[in-house]
Amino acid sequence: MNLIYGINSVTEALKARARGFEWVGIAKDRSDMRLQRVVEECRRQGVAVRFITRQEMDRMAATNSHQGVIAVTSGKQYSDLDDLIAAKRGAHTLVVVLDGVEDPHNLGAILRTADAAGADGVVIPDRRAAGVTGAVVKVSAGASAHLPIAKVTNISRTVEELKSKNIWVVGLDERGKQSYDELDYNMDCAIVLGAEGKGLHDLVARKCDFLVSIPMLGKVPSLNVSVAGAVVLYEVVRQRRKSAK
Amino acid sequence: MNLIYGINSVTEALKARARGFEWVGIAKDRSDMRLQRVVEECRRQGVAVRFITRQEMDRMAATNSHQGVIAVTSGKQYSDLDDLIAAKRGAHTLVVVLDGVEDPHNLGAILRTADAAGADGVVIPDRRAAGVTGAVVKVSAGASAHLPIAKVTNISRTVEELKSKNIWVVGLDERGKQSYDELDYNMDCAIVLGAEGKGLHDLVARKCDFLVSIPMLGKVPSLNVSVAGAVVLYEVVRQRRKSAK
Repeated sequence: MNLIYGINSVTEALKARARGFEWVGIAKDRSDMRLQRVVEECRRQGVAVRFITRQEMDRMAATNSHQGVIAVTSGKQYSDLDDLIAAKRGAHTLVVVLDGVEDPHNLGAILRTADAAGADGVVIPDRRAAGVTGAVVKVSAGASAHLPIAKVTNISRTVEELKSKNIWVVGLDERGKQSYDELDYNMDCAIVLGAEGKGLHDLVARKCDFLVSIPMLGKVPSLNVSVAGAVVLYEVVRQRRKSAK
Repeated sequence: MNLIYGINSVTEALKARARGFEWVGIAKDRSDMRLQRVVEECRRQGVAVRFITRQEMDRMAATNSHQGVIAVTSGKQYSDLDDLIAAKRGAHTLVVVLDGVEDPHNLGAILRTADAAGADGVVIPDRRAAGVTGAVVKVSAGASAHLPIAKVTNISRTVEELKSKNIWVVGLDERGKQSYDELDYNMDCAIVLGAEGKGLHDLVARKCDFLVSIPMLGKVPSLNVSVAGAVVLYEVVRQRRKSAK
């Protein structure tokens, strides 16, 4: 069982139908037009609606930022890595690989940005990392419902698999000698992001085809991992859009 | 009175001396090398150190993520807008203007990125927006101590002031017809970011010299404001570094 909460998150997940919905809970004391639309969407999709108290909802969501709507689903259906790669959306593959991102807010933010940048999907490790929980779904603004996500047991093996499929693997790490904007991203590629404050694991860093860094012009030593990922992903978007013109 | 907590945040603020420190609290039960270094830095700078219980620290910080160190300061010293602009760091001005960012995490993340991108400073409104609180200082990874921050009463008037000083004002808003990467940022400029989910206020949007947007290639309708800001700021960095070569 999994929970999704928040008006946008529940609406997006409903539209994507990626999740098996069990039921949707609506706060009894609320009469918001946007909640009404969620109820209508549930009726259209044949999803059961229950009206519950705000107290019950606070308890279920373990937060009061649910905006009066909560959905109980059978859980995120993870994709197979091969399927994720095969479902290429643009002229070139763009996969995001997370080498141990632990903070649910960062995972949610990365999913949101990866979707916005038109990535084919995101690969996450199945241990010692954030999974797709309710908080992640909320921060992702619904992206977690649409975007294929593959769970793998070993990121370093995943890097090898990607390379064997002729996908260039670009690791983002402060040890990278090359600036991220010096690469030509008009190629099938995967962007690997490391854990906040730790960077990539040595083994993973060594296996990347390229190791790139982001220039730091101020006094802070690093960027937040979801921000750093966004800078690189949108450089890929910028270059590919320019080439397509 | 203001509180800063976390090893990096306190260390960075100590180094910057931007804040008048009243005293630094260290958790009694911790014997961490990094805490020891904070104590030494305090002694060097003549800042009083108090050893307090973890419970007292949890209560003061209103969180347990203080890593055993907390600093009581006389508050962030805000800059004057004119001084902030006069203290130009590079060949061209780069100022970030926040038109009502309410979430402290977003404000902290924007400060961190603005510092990393070499911005001259950040302008925030003094009402209906997040101020530089302890949570903001922590998320900013110390940037809030170094980076000049100006508080203004009216963002739309600030936009006019910037224009009168020959600084081009670029608003980031989904209504922008032009993509953010089509502009040439080799000019003195200010980047205006709006409130999460709401964008720029109409009056502010109308006064901008340029209104640009970020292409959204997936299903989510927008990026997080701190992520969107980072994408634009690093496009400025990329273009200016390229021109400098």
